Amino acid sequence: MDDFFTLRTVTWEDGAVRMIDQTALPIKLSYVRYTRPDQVASAIKTMVVRGAPAIGVAAAMGLALAAARSRATKLPDFMREMESAAAMLRATRPTAVNLFWGIDRVMKKAGSAPSVRQAKEAVSAEVKAMEEEDIQVNRRLGSNGANLIHDGDTVLTQCNAGALATVGYGTALGVVRAAVEQGKLVRVLVPETRPALQGARLTAFELARDRIACTLISDTAVGHMMSLGRVDCVIVGADRITRDGYVFNKIGTYQEAVLAKRHGIPFYPAAPSSTFDLARIHGNVIIEERGADEVVKIRGKRIAPKGVPVANPAFDMTPPELVTSMITERGLISAPFEENIPRLIS
Amino acid sequence: MDDFFTLRTVTWEDGAVRMIDQTALPIKLSYVRYTRPDQVASAIKTMVVRGAPAIGVAAAMGLALAAARSRATKLPDFMREMESAAAMLRATRPTAVNLFWGIDRVMKKAGSAPSVRQAKEAVSAEVKAMEEEDIQVNRRLGSNGANLIHDGDTVLTQCNAGALATVGYGTALGVVRAAVEQGKLVRVLVPETRPALQGARLTAFELARDRIACTLISDTAVGHMMSLGRVDCVIVGADRITRDGYVFNKIGTYQEAVLAKRHGIPFYPAAPSSTFDLARIHGNVIIEERGADEVVKIRGKRIAPKGVPVANPAFDMTPPELVTSMITERGLISAPFEENIPRLIS
Repeated sequence: MDDFFTLRTVTWEDGAVRMIDQTALPIKLSYVRYTRPDQVASAIKTMVVRGAPAIGVAAAMGLALAAARSRATKLPDFMREMESAAAMLRATRPTAVNLFWGIDRVMKKAGSAPSVRQAKEAVSAEVKAMEEEDIQVNRRLGSNGANLIHDGDTVLTQCNAGALATVGYGTALGVVRAAVEQGKLVRVLVPETRPALQGARLTAFELARDRIACTLISDTAVGHMMSLGRVDCVIVGADRITRDGYVFNKIGTYQEAVLAKRHGIPFYPAAPSSTFDLARIHGNVIIEERGADEVVKIRGKRIAPKGVPVANPAFDMTPPELVTSMITERGLISAPFEENIPRLIS
Repeated sequence: MDDFFTLRTVTWEDGAVRMIDQTALPIKLSYVRYTRPDQVASAIKTMVVRGAPAIGVAAAMGLALAAARSRATKLPDFMREMESAAAMLRATRPTAVNLFWGIDRVMKKAGSAPSVRQAKEAVSAEVKAMEEEDIQVNRRLGSNGANLIHDGDTVLTQCNAGALATVGYGTALGVVRAAVEQGKLVRVLVPETRPALQGARLTAFELARDRIACTLISDTAVGHMMSLGRVDCVIVGADRITRDGYVFNKIGTYQEAVLAKRHGIPFYPAAPSSTFDLARIHGNVIIEERGADEVVKIRGKRIAPKGVPVANPAFDMTPPELVTSMITERGLISAPFEENIPRLIS
């Protein structure tokens, strides 16, 4: 079974970052290779790479490229260059906390080295370690969540919280993969997830590649499928979970949670500890607003009248009262979340 | 203000039906002209014309084309041709009851005429009357609903229940137009309504044309916009409302109703009496399942992997407990719906 789960979204190649170009999926599985931090920043902005854990690792690697390219001979000069690259990478996208987590982790390594040479080595080793850790964390997370899925279940998800949202294996889809590895028959119900279509383009692609059964639906059909009894549980990823238990995730997640509550269907966010933001409560999180073109054009074709005003929030917020449990690599977290999150994650 | 509201979706031209080709919108406002009933049947199936009231009138006119073209000299022969055309038109789409209402109304006229010549005249006069009636009914409906909208309100809708879903003026958007005619400032929040994108393509088009403010969103953003307090009420159309108060409408309506309930936002279906089906309760309505291509391709461009299984229900069912009031040309209907629907509509 392991042979199937081989997609590697982001790879560190000593002085270069190799990534799947997710804007080309599902038409074509192709890779890009970057050697400059600004290329990585641009890739994060334009969603060549996306998914909270994946952009955390990608941003860290972008910073490692800045380290590798530096011609500084003195540590303060080196650190100034690193700070500048970090600022550029931090400004790419505001909502997923993993981005800041990945950057901070690399900056800490760089800042504690005694020389530029050692800083460069430490940073390179750190991002390679983060890459490997990501998969191990997702496997533990998957294993912790797999018992929540019963043989024959249909799991509704949202967006792509799979191998393509991480280095590999996935968070929400990691739980599905772990259940499949346990020999369970699982079907994934995949909303296409407008505007960027990560469900149709990415989740359907990676599930088909791993021969996991799925059914694609329009985002409008979520409630109807639940009302027909065709959803056994909801498992989604997360871009940030605040100390008080609010889950920030791809737009459309909140309405899935409300609908799940109405239908008595369990709702599980699945996220590594790097997605938890113990420093913030829900009121202090910025929800990214993206450009109108994502909504009014699809693959270059216009679908709405020119000039129509558009609102395009990229994420939404699900309050803890709608969450059954959170699935992490350290175990499950249940209510009261504001007590149990700091206990397990700190 | 009246000058603005001039879109005519379906027109009877004595031996021909003229329709806006809605598949070409919003790129181009173009018209098609049909002289054979099979052309009209095909136009209904492929959504050249769509929207429950519009397909009711279009189907009636399709049948009127069969009458106009008939070379039968004897009434029984004439009626056999009419029955055959009616059967073809009935088989186009199963969910909107207006289709059957329109066909039945023409068949009744034809069947009560004393000669073929008089039957032809009666049928032609009937469909012209239905065309005019549709607009008058929508204006009354709009006027009945307009008081539910307050100055400055944002109205969330779904799909297109506007001029393009009727002969003209619209049902849900007729209510908005009537509020605008009262001098109220109204903004319409328009979910794009995948898969067929009637919100983005049609509702945004006709509102822009009539200079009514609107904001286009992805279907995933409905719940989020409500949670931000950006929706004052929901007004949608209907394809069939059963005797027991269940509202069948475009896929995505049900989840809007569930979300509205959670946020304490009133939810109003707006429909003419021809949309009510007093002969049926909710368990006996067929929800049309349409082809996968609507979901996996947009304007000819593939957005999902080849071969991915798709579920594409075109409609869903909203139970009466989620409905605040129904807006009809005969007045508002409130709970208990199973008592008040037969009282007002029969």
